[in-house]
Amino acid sequence: MGIRKVETEADMNAITLLTDFGTSDGYVAEVKGVLFSLAPQARILDLAHDLAPQDIMAARLAVARYWRRFPPGTVHMVVVDPGVGTERAALAVTSEGRMLVGPDNGVLSPALFSLDAEVVRLDVPADAAPTFHGRDVFAPAAAALAGGTDLAALGEPFTGALRLRTPSPRHQSDRSVLGEVLTVDRFGNIITNLRPAGGGGSVELGGLRVELARSYGHVPRASMLALIGSSGFVEIALREGNAARELGAARGMPVLWRPDPKPRG
Amino acid sequence: MGIRKVETEADMNAITLLTDFGTSDGYVAEVKGVLFSLAPQARILDLAHDLAPQDIMAARLAVARYWRRFPPGTVHMVVVDPGVGTERAALAVTSEGRMLVGPDNGVLSPALFSLDAEVVRLDVPADAAPTFHGRDVFAPAAAALAGGTDLAALGEPFTGALRLRTPSPRHQSDRSVLGEVLTVDRFGNIITNLRPAGGGGSVELGGLRVELARSYGHVPRASMLALIGSSGFVEIALREGNAARELGAARGMPVLWRPDPKPRG
Amino acid sequence: MGIRKVETEADMNAITLLTDFGTSDGYVAEVKGVLFSLAPQARILDLAHDLAPQDIMAARLAVARYWRRFPPGTVHMVVVDPGVGTERAALAVTSEGRMLVGPDNGVLSPALFSLDAEVVRLDVPADAAPTFHGRDVFAPAAAALAGGTDLAALGEPFTGALRLRTPSPRHQSDRSVLGEVLTVDRFGNIITNLRPAGGGGSVELGGLRVELARSYGHVPRASMLALIGSSGFVEIALREGNAARELGAARGMPVLWRPDPKPRG
Repeated sequence: MGIRKVETEADMNAITLLTDFGTSDGYVAEVKGVLFSLAPQARILDLAHDLAPQDIMAARLAVARYWRRFPPGTVHMVVVDPGVGTERAALAVTSEGRMLVGPDNGVLSPALFSLDAEVVRLDVPADAAPTFHGRDVFAPAAAALAGGTDLAALGEPFTGALRLRTPSPRHQSDRSVLGEVLTVDRFGNIITNLRPAGGGGSVELGGLRVELARSYGHVPRASMLALIGSSGFVEIALREGNAARELGAARGMPVLWRPDPKPRG
Repeated sequence: MGIRKVETEADMNAITLLTDFGTSDGYVAEVKGVLFSLAPQARILDLAHDLAPQDIMAARLAVARYWRRFPPGTVHMVVVDPGVGTERAALAVTSEGRMLVGPDNGVLSPALFSLDAEVVRLDVPADAAPTFHGRDVFAPAAAALAGGTDLAALGEPFTGALRLRTPSPRHQSDRSVLGEVLTVDRFGNIITNLRPAGGGGSVELGGLRVELARSYGHVPRASMLALIGSSGFVEIALREGNAARELGAARGMPVLWRPDPKPRG
Repeated sequence: MGIRKVETEADMNAITLLTDFGTSDGYVAEVKGVLFSLAPQARILDLAHDLAPQDIMAARLAVARYWRRFPPGTVHMVVVDPGVGTERAALAVTSEGRMLVGPDNGVLSPALFSLDAEVVRLDVPADAAPTFHGRDVFAPAAAALAGGTDLAALGEPFTGALRLRTPSPRHQSDRSVLGEVLTVDRFGNIITNLRPAGGGGSVELGGLRVELARSYGHVPRASMLALIGSSGFVEIALREGNAARELGAARGMPVLWRPDPKPRG
């Protein structure tokens, strides 16, 4: 098929949306009404609206997964904002060619570690609803950025934005590494903060010890396994089942990685 | 960045979707297939698909929030339709430059009070599935409207469309106002029908009395507060918590607003 | 309104997404980042992301509903993939002008029965995450197809793709037909595999017998009825209620259709 490529900058405009608004009422609708009114030429891409309410950690982990997978020029709007209506700053960021807007509570952290990251504090209009900056502050800013407005036009430079990091696992004297559960996905996969060099060894969680395998296909059905997941971290999974439910796993639970025993010489 | 603005009418076409279809099967997909086949140039914007099944009130409240936030020319498709397959009419509406399609059960009410509102009863094709007017009646009508078809071409003028109003609070002789809970959002915010002039005073719900505050930042964490929410109504919220769960709040529960006591002269 | 029609092939590009990824983390986001990076001109249409985890049957039934409702040229990406990381093939298909990508587990079946169906086995890059072919295998293939790449360029021809069929009901000697429950939708409608010629008769499920009616309007509120649903199968519904909850219905339960008794001559 002879697709006609139309490569103007206008085609590249996109605004992505990550929120905890849910999809059972009109909040997402109001945000999209603002975006579409102010930036009618911009693509609007829903990423997820069902993050656990006010779960900054979940938002940060999601942003880490996707913010750089979109091409330069993309505007990422991230609204998980338990501090709306307090003194927390509203931010806009440019980083590695992408633009982001969201609250200063750590959700934008993955983009803030880049050397070229620039941050401004968004002006909050006097008539902005103190409970809905998604509609009245972040959406107008995202639309402006998508339309080509410079970051500097949106507010004053801001230093000291909260930068949260994924907790680091602890390397122990017996060559084991003590990590923790970062999150559990919809399939019940238990995602940890472990990134063992080499990839072998085993992990222990709640009394269970499982070997690291290359993928589901390397263990029988209904077996527990550990593997390097799609974000590079060790995951514990139950093939064709829900590992987290089986093990009662939750964020923060300790997970221990041990290397393969050395072969006897 | 030099974004090339392409402002043809084609760019302004958009069809928004609000339904209670959920997102665990193929219903939304069928509707989008019809829309995309008949109006390939129209933007399709999901607003929400997880409204409580058959909850006309929730749909009406959502429509009230967003229908005018989209620019003139937008087509709003609203399908929460417990009466599908009965004699209830299928409607198309123009109002303040926007267009809407949906059942005659009150969900389109917010757009029906405008002085310039025009309503037609959509013709129902003989082969339309009696259980799925979203696919077979509303989607073709929405696509036609997005493509520039005149409202009058879609059916006969219709009078007497059901117009539901948000229940009015009752002003009482002691200057208090008796209202009720309209809805509860995903965060547990309790949205009432109270709109006190001036904004001070306090509200009582289920034995609890809370002062109206300007926003979350004005009370300590884990405190209950009342404030004017983003739709202009009084909301009762628990800062960084779920007020509705805490108070057992549900739609229809009475809420009483009292003015600030008069300062002694 | 004089809408300017822009009918280039580029306008017709669309990639639809059906997954069981849910919308509470970053998986859908990563997929969209890949799609938007590789095929920036392609429309991306969410169909559903909340299919029951790993429910191949639900995905197949959804695909059957929608795949042909989109115009030729559409690319359908279907990722319900409990076998990811095993030896199951990753497929790309052309059928009746549409294109599909997804695992070889039956989810693409509805498109595989067409006489012109062509199937290739997608090459899996060495660095593809063994747990996330949606991002690393299917999204790049969908983007390539949307951009005009020939199917043959994506992999070797593949025969023997798993083709699952909706189970056939059994015609019995007393003119009754024994079927089963295929699925239950969000409204509690019980969808069976029965397609009685003519449309009359009655159905029995779990001890309850209901007459086939033309639509909800033909029975009183809160009454149980059976009707021919929007996919052509018999459904059992509770007008303005949830039939499946009422009857404890679940996939696989037997349902018996009986013809109307013959009038005495």
